Amino acid sequence: MARPLILISNDDGLDFPGINMLIDIARALGEVVVVAPMEHQSGMSSAITILQPLRAMKVAQEEGYTAWCVSGTPVDCMKLALDQLLGGRRPDLVLSGINHGYNAGISTIYSGTMGVVFEASLRHIPAIAFSHGAIVKDIDFTPCRPYIEDIIKRALVRLDVLRDVCLNVNFPCDRETYEGMKITTTAQGHWEQEYDHRIDPHGRDYYWLQGKYVSDDPADDTTDFYWLHRGWVAVTPCRVDQTAHDAIPSVTSLLTD
Amino acid sequence: MARPLILISNDDGLDFPGINMLIDIARALGEVVVVAPMEHQSGMSSAITILQPLRAMKVAQEEGYTAWCVSGTPVDCMKLALDQLLGGRRPDLVLSGINHGYNAGISTIYSGTMGVVFEASLRHIPAIAFSHGAIVKDIDFTPCRPYIEDIIKRALVRLDVLRDVCLNVNFPCDRETYEGMKITTTAQGHWEQEYDHRIDPHGRDYYWLQGKYVSDDPADDTTDFYWLHRGWVAVTPCRVDQTAHDAIPSVTSLLTD
Repeated sequence: MARPLILISNDDGLDFPGINMLIDIARALGEVVVVAPMEHQSGMSSAITILQPLRAMKVAQEEGYTAWCVSGTPVDCMKLALDQLLGGRRPDLVLSGINHGYNAGISTIYSGTMGVVFEASLRHIPAIAFSHGAIVKDIDFTPCRPYIEDIIKRALVRLDVLRDVCLNVNFPCDRETYEGMKITTTAQGHWEQEYDHRIDPHGRDYYWLQGKYVSDDPADDTTDFYWLHRGWVAVTPCRVDQTAHDAIPSVTSLLTD
Repeated sequence: MARPLILISNDDGLDFPGINMLIDIARALGEVVVVAPMEHQSGMSSAITILQPLRAMKVAQEEGYTAWCVSGTPVDCMKLALDQLLGGRRPDLVLSGINHGYNAGISTIYSGTMGVVFEASLRHIPAIAFSHGAIVKDIDFTPCRPYIEDIIKRALVRLDVLRDVCLNVNFPCDRETYEGMKITTTAQGHWEQEYDHRIDPHGRDYYWLQGKYVSDDPADDTTDFYWLHRGWVAVTPCRVDQTAHDAIPSVTSLLTD
């Protein structure tokens, strides 16, 4: 194809190393437009801003590269990019991340990084999310780079495969090299001790979200966390539509018999 | 069973008629605890509050009925209820709504009403969301009542069916009676003209979300919107996990061949 148009966002904003690594890789492969949140937007899932207007600020423009900050959620960034900021052009590929922290296991439903790729995927635009298990700001992304380059290059020549399926790519933390790449499923799990209950100086209760994720299927060797914990890069194909097609007979029986 | 424990939330807060209809129906069927957002939370999807603490305020307590308001998103309400406010008790059933406005078609990914039931479902708690197509505050919910009572009663005697599948129930607008109930799938669609681009008094651009939803599969007689537009109550079984199991072979081929 001609030089592809690649749209990039994340949930942390432009001053994080993860998105800058992704921009650097993508600029070697196509024209890049970045539309990222102005403020930290972790845990925003597919939230959209309805009751307030959005602002957009262009923060970079040079040959083959434009960057905007938007005063909303990650999905707001995508919607505004596709409806307004790209001037009607449709990206060939959407990239999200690299997030600082896993978007693996069932926690992906809270992920703004995944919100970005779900928004693209429901418009049939191929989309890939990248996340790294370390939650610090200062991550060495060097070992991720060849994997990210390889995944993007393969996607760009077979975009049809990703028309209705987006990819959720996670890199294990605490590794200088990886064992390889596995195609995985989403690990099931639950949280324990989700809130830290505290008393403020005025004697009133407040609650901070904390919580410990506990895997419900630690022996299932198809899941993302199974392979991440063993040093592999995990790639889970995902779909926006949450219809439980296989449950239609049982629900029909429940409600109509 | 003994009198079941029913946990109720929504995305609009306690001063909306929809949730009060649901509370009224549920109180006849079990012990009811309501944990609803303090402020309007439309479009919050499965967003969670990470960077700020939450507050909870008990606003009602009488025999068999307790109500709280929480300073967060619909999913925050669920998490705080299950981890703290219910004192360790596990609800038999979670209800969400009745939302004023459809949560049908692929827009369900933005829905806080659905965020509530997904949060329950990932903990294997049976959960049902109810939404009404009218977007005004003053809706006559009388025609919905027998359907809601029937669905809840059937669910309470067969909770096993809903262990990993939640229900998304929508009522058509502009109808005084319904044709009946259909078990449906999520309609695919897209939005057109998503933003109203305006100029503020200082000459700067801003963007309001608006948009018109256009169905991509209007002739598909399995979908929620197909039947809603024909006067039927639509019930779509949903699942939290978005793994595209059927795409694993094609993605494996894409990334490893």
